[in-house]
Amino acid sequence: MSNDSNANLTADRPTFVTHLECGMEGDRYEADTVHGLSKAGKPLLVRYDLEGIGKAVTREELASRPADLWRYREFLPVRKTENIVSLGEIQTPLIELPRLRAGKGTLLVKDEGRLPTGSFKARGLCLAVCMAKELGIQRVAMPTNGNAGAALAAYGSRAGMESYIFCPADTPEVNVREIAAQGAKVWRVNGLINDCGRIVGQGKEATGWFDFSTLKEPYRIEGKKTMGLELADQMGWTVPDTIFYPTGGGTGLIGMWKAFNELKELGWLTGKLPRMVAVQASGCAPMVKAWEAGVEHAELWENAHTVAAGIRVPVAVGDFLILRAVRESGGFAIAVDDDAIVAGLEEVSKTEGFLMCPEGAATYAAWKKALAGGLVSPDETAVLFNCASGLKYELPRADDALDCTGPIDYGKLVAAHA
Amino acid sequence: MSNDSNANLTADRPTFVTHLECGMEGDRYEADTVHGLSKAGKPLLVRYDLEGIGKAVTREELASRPADLWRYREFLPVRKTENIVSLGEIQTPLIELPRLRAGKGTLLVKDEGRLPTGSFKARGLCLAVCMAKELGIQRVAMPTNGNAGAALAAYGSRAGMESYIFCPADTPEVNVREIAAQGAKVWRVNGLINDCGRIVGQGKEATGWFDFSTLKEPYRIEGKKTMGLELADQMGWTVPDTIFYPTGGGTGLIGMWKAFNELKELGWLTGKLPRMVAVQASGCAPMVKAWEAGVEHAELWENAHTVAAGIRVPVAVGDFLILRAVRESGGFAIAVDDDAIVAGLEEVSKTEGFLMCPEGAATYAAWKKALAGGLVSPDETAVLFNCASGLKYELPRADDALDCTGPIDYGKLVAAHA
Repeated sequence: MSNDSNANLTADRPTFVTHLECGMEGDRYEADTVHGLSKAGKPLLVRYDLEGIGKAVTREELASRPADLWRYREFLPVRKTENIVSLGEIQTPLIELPRLRAGKGTLLVKDEGRLPTGSFKARGLCLAVCMAKELGIQRVAMPTNGNAGAALAAYGSRAGMESYIFCPADTPEVNVREIAAQGAKVWRVNGLINDCGRIVGQGKEATGWFDFSTLKEPYRIEGKKTMGLELADQMGWTVPDTIFYPTGGGTGLIGMWKAFNELKELGWLTGKLPRMVAVQASGCAPMVKAWEAGVEHAELWENAHTVAAGIRVPVAVGDFLILRAVRESGGFAIAVDDDAIVAGLEEVSKTEGFLMCPEGAATYAAWKKALAGGLVSPDETAVLFNCASGLKYELPRADDALDCTGPIDYGKLVAAHA
Repeated sequence: MSNDSNANLTADRPTFVTHLECGMEGDRYEADTVHGLSKAGKPLLVRYDLEGIGKAVTREELASRPADLWRYREFLPVRKTENIVSLGEIQTPLIELPRLRAGKGTLLVKDEGRLPTGSFKARGLCLAVCMAKELGIQRVAMPTNGNAGAALAAYGSRAGMESYIFCPADTPEVNVREIAAQGAKVWRVNGLINDCGRIVGQGKEATGWFDFSTLKEPYRIEGKKTMGLELADQMGWTVPDTIFYPTGGGTGLIGMWKAFNELKELGWLTGKLPRMVAVQASGCAPMVKAWEAGVEHAELWENAHTVAAGIRVPVAVGDFLILRAVRESGGFAIAVDDDAIVAGLEEVSKTEGFLMCPEGAATYAAWKKALAGGLVSPDETAVLFNCASGLKYELPRADDALDCTGPIDYGKLVAAHA
């Protein structure tokens, strides 16, 4: 039977990478060699022989493979099976929110918190580590607000690499601890994410480490691209009307838009692609500002603050790719207040029993705001991305004490629930 | 295309429950009606028309369905599709530990931390809540050490039920908070799990709530049974030589053994079934003591203590079912010290990049001990059950501070990793 759960990890499959190109200038770079940013200092995009993919594999064949990230191997850059570094990148579930949906529409959450290390960062870092292994890189470094560092630590240790990770001092304790537990070396820096990035960049020569910062190597996008491949596959090779995506560095939004366009070129998707909605927090909304201003690049956002730390990214090297995807798709960028994020998290959790992370809750708050403002229709299908497990974040305390040594007033207990 | 991710939740399928029977006495109870324990005060087991299942569905047909718990619908008690309460019960991954395996054997971890609410408790509570909904129950109560309560809170709220949850005062903060966040009412009780159980039991009449304590309703076993169905399916309808299972209340061990026997009777599994190994902590090992003594029931373990709080269960109502499965399968019960659990957690995490929960780490420690003692062969296939996400537990602090305002000594950073 073909349904051996590790079949995707052991089967040799043809690969179809032709070259890489600068996301800004379009100039060409050779495959199978180490790359950082392009000559113009912009992210590189991996290009494939899509016609070749179309001849090598069908949607029916994909359906017979185990449901994980490696099902889409032909769309990915790893050449040799032995370089696959895996911790079980399962297909994440699409969960309906039937009580909170509007009109005749369907409201779905894609729960990325089920991936290794509890966040969508696993997709990107898994591919980045596989490619680093394939290209002979042994030592890597990264600035992180938490979840990306945790994913690098896990995949790096599994690949037998040395990982050096730098976080702002206010990074959540759980993230710092899981990074260390998973075999990376981690430092708390008395600065922000850009200070951490500078330490990584300036240390390249002295240490020989490779810079794994967001979009500064070409393969994290390819890992995040699988969110789009998987979503289309799960929906029977159709797409939702709108996708609400929590946008910090934006790798996932860029990756998904790349996926949908590859599938369209291949003929596996026909008709309208989803409207891509970049969700940010009011306290850090550089993409929203740039989208509203109609410009191609975003300015640095001063005094960034929000409860959704994962989207507290004042400047993104892929800003023009994010804005391009939003505009090409007929989507929009939208900011929500911290109060709406906190209220959204509580509403989804108590009503549907589904605990989102703050960044995921921001997409729910944004969907409500967009619905109220007429930006989306209540009768459409919307997909919200919950990018990490809600268990990684501090929740409010809300219990009562009960003394079991005396008599219990059961009427009072029941009244307390009402 | 049949691969719509929600197809399992919407397709009506025939059901095959014939009756329930006492796990001890074997006397028969009617299906489709509310049951707690049997007349003898023992757990009830659900029985199926296995011949009917064999005629209704093939392994090939199962393989074409989405990879989640509902793939096995014919083996489950829910009659009506409308009573399925789901939060995305995906097939959990089987992850190899290639660096830590012994001899020519394969060492695999089944990572149950990927389920809703981050633990294997989701399987049991999902089915228990579905059946409560099917039987018209609106108010439920449960004693819990944490993860079971979190799962009940989530599924209960999703089903629109009232959940009342009682934990010992030293239950981890994250569990208490997630229970409350997911819409249940939770109390911290100045006692142990048995005190909480007493509060639930004694309140039945006054409150009308249904007692959801471990094995006191018949359907949690059916949910946990899917661990066995899924494992056999993932391994191409074969089984490993040995299964190491962290054993508190033992619902999963009982459920898996039930699954393997149902599959054997159906002819889907042939040959030897796995040896079932009940793993406990040295500070709370009533099953190990009973297994060694050759008796059918375990005595209450006094002064229970272990870092693996999930297996700190001094007395289990299903003790005889656990011991029966261990003996029938040619397995054994084994206890490991807290030091070995902590060291095992660190070893797997740093070496393989995989963060286990303490109870999962206990199974790794037990496998090592069993290997050293000649109880298992290094050339066999062993499956360890990681019952919850390692992120739900407190990890040690292990970071350094770095001052980004002065010059960075990169040589020192690299030396710090060695």
